[in-house]
Amino acid sequence: MATIKDVAAHAGVSFKTVSRVINRHPHVTDAVRQKVLRAIEDLDYRPNIVARNMRTRKTEYIGLITDQIMTTPFSGAIIKGAQEAAWTSGIMLLTVNTDGQPELEAAAVNMLLERQVAGIAYATMFHKAVAPPAKLTDAPCILVDCFSASGELPAIVPDEMQGGYDATRHLLSRGHRRIAMINGKRGYPGTEGRLNGYRKALESADLAYDEALVRFGDWWQEDGYHHACCLMKLPDPPTAICCGNDRIAMGVFAAVHELGAAIPDDVAVIGFDNMEVIAAHLRPGLTTMALPYYEMGQRAIEYLTGDRCDDLQNGRRIELPCLLIQREST
Amino acid sequence: MATIKDVAAHAGVSFKTVSRVINRHPHVTDAVRQKVLRAIEDLDYRPNIVARNMRTRKTEYIGLITDQIMTTPFSGAIIKGAQEAAWTSGIMLLTVNTDGQPELEAAAVNMLLERQVAGIAYATMFHKAVAPPAKLTDAPCILVDCFSASGELPAIVPDEMQGGYDATRHLLSRGHRRIAMINGKRGYPGTEGRLNGYRKALESADLAYDEALVRFGDWWQEDGYHHACCLMKLPDPPTAICCGNDRIAMGVFAAVHELGAAIPDDVAVIGFDNMEVIAAHLRPGLTTMALPYYEMGQRAIEYLTGDRCDDLQNGRRIELPCLLIQREST
Repeated sequence: MATIKDVAAHAGVSFKTVSRVINRHPHVTDAVRQKVLRAIEDLDYRPNIVARNMRTRKTEYIGLITDQIMTTPFSGAIIKGAQEAAWTSGIMLLTVNTDGQPELEAAAVNMLLERQVAGIAYATMFHKAVAPPAKLTDAPCILVDCFSASGELPAIVPDEMQGGYDATRHLLSRGHRRIAMINGKRGYPGTEGRLNGYRKALESADLAYDEALVRFGDWWQEDGYHHACCLMKLPDPPTAICCGNDRIAMGVFAAVHELGAAIPDDVAVIGFDNMEVIAAHLRPGLTTMALPYYEMGQRAIEYLTGDRCDDLQNGRRIELPCLLIQREST
Repeated sequence: MATIKDVAAHAGVSFKTVSRVINRHPHVTDAVRQKVLRAIEDLDYRPNIVARNMRTRKTEYIGLITDQIMTTPFSGAIIKGAQEAAWTSGIMLLTVNTDGQPELEAAAVNMLLERQVAGIAYATMFHKAVAPPAKLTDAPCILVDCFSASGELPAIVPDEMQGGYDATRHLLSRGHRRIAMINGKRGYPGTEGRLNGYRKALESADLAYDEALVRFGDWWQEDGYHHACCLMKLPDPPTAICCGNDRIAMGVFAAVHELGAAIPDDVAVIGFDNMEVIAAHLRPGLTTMALPYYEMGQRAIEYLTGDRCDDLQNGRRIELPCLLIQREST
């Protein structure tokens, strides 16, 4: 395994310079940073896994601030990804849930700074723009499943457009030409990104965008049920429905079953989220796009520990792909 | 609001003695402890809410160790209850997820002790017997949704028998006399407690226990579906089904709908858990017994902060009640 000295030799810089780059020291020129990052990548150098062994070193801490924890299982997946990445580096993850209350968020950041954490990850439970406490930047920080409205903070988010595109391409590959979309609320990055991906996929198959087939709701089963009832009663109903999430898909299942139709024979259904408790256990099992919650949590910690040298300077975002989970509904 | 001095005067002891009782100092006689606890209750004294204001005092920490976080939304509810109770007392809750791995658990306990936390809550995501790391008792500690096999640690768990009893009583109150149970796996406190409650409720209505109506599975939709198909095809099928959890109930819904029967007219269904994403959004909405996850998390922290003086000496357990959530399936 490569050592920090190998990286220094490969990059033609000193040991100290490599360390400065890894620890995001401000006084490093961009050219040097790039050289070191390239050497780290070339040698597949993993700076902390060995060094930060929890048996031999004083414990280091990283803080994870989450907004809401109860209503979605996603918070769990983000935390789990972050937790496992932290353990791998011998780091203790301190998780603080603030329920999205600005006062508690500010207090949490202060407490974590006081504790001299090595970094802070700030996560939301759905993809959106945020205005985190100003002091967040007093430590190395990263946003998870959100981005700063002003655009200057590093962020890891799902690639919503790719998700919508791949979901629709999957339905196209099954021979569907009349594909409806029951999406979430307008204005959210998830809704708009998936819609754009859907449109792009239709275009790629030379299919016209038909407004009558595209509906928006509030992410719940009831929205899926309502819109599916309307869509299925159209003179020329869709043969496939792409849903904004698995809850919407669950409502679509109820509507289709009540109308005496069959999934996937009469209408194919694809969801988003891969919410295990629903998707894996509907009848038939729901094909869905898994959002990279676990991976976002993991990647955020790897970024903060320096175990992964993502270039996130100047507000750049990493967009992680959504993954098609094939079951029986398509 | 009562002060610590009022408590001391009321109990006829010194200020220091009250403080010792609150902080669980070992050298206090049982008689004195009881006297102080009574005074605290009489005066409704809340020791920490005022004193431990986060603006004016050095931050204190309490650790929360959880076993698995991803697969169930329950972990979220326990953490949320704990988090809110901690904030109320101006305490920062440090949550560590260990995935149930003994090595990580031991490391987490060590790290929390090093951090000099005021206490540690150790939570599991379903009710079971555990063998937590030995060092857990180096700090004030409490088990949440679990209990030590050896019985010596304080614990907060759901009252499973009351839950099974109330669920069955609810079905009886709707006029049902032929009530089936599709329960979880044998040997778990949840399964056995709910079964005992079911039997006790039948007895209370002078109904015989019929083995043919009682099934066991693995907590999943597929188990509910399978057993409901069998039960509904009996020569004398049940008019109501009490399910071990909401996932089982979701499978029962699928079976009943496929058989062309109606809920609740042909068969009433009640679940357990009040797993929001399922129970509130099935068609019809699922009546279910909410387990006290939030309350267990909250109560554990109140115990550790001394904001609530539960008497949990010598391995006593607090059993918190399950609550009937009435929807349209019964």
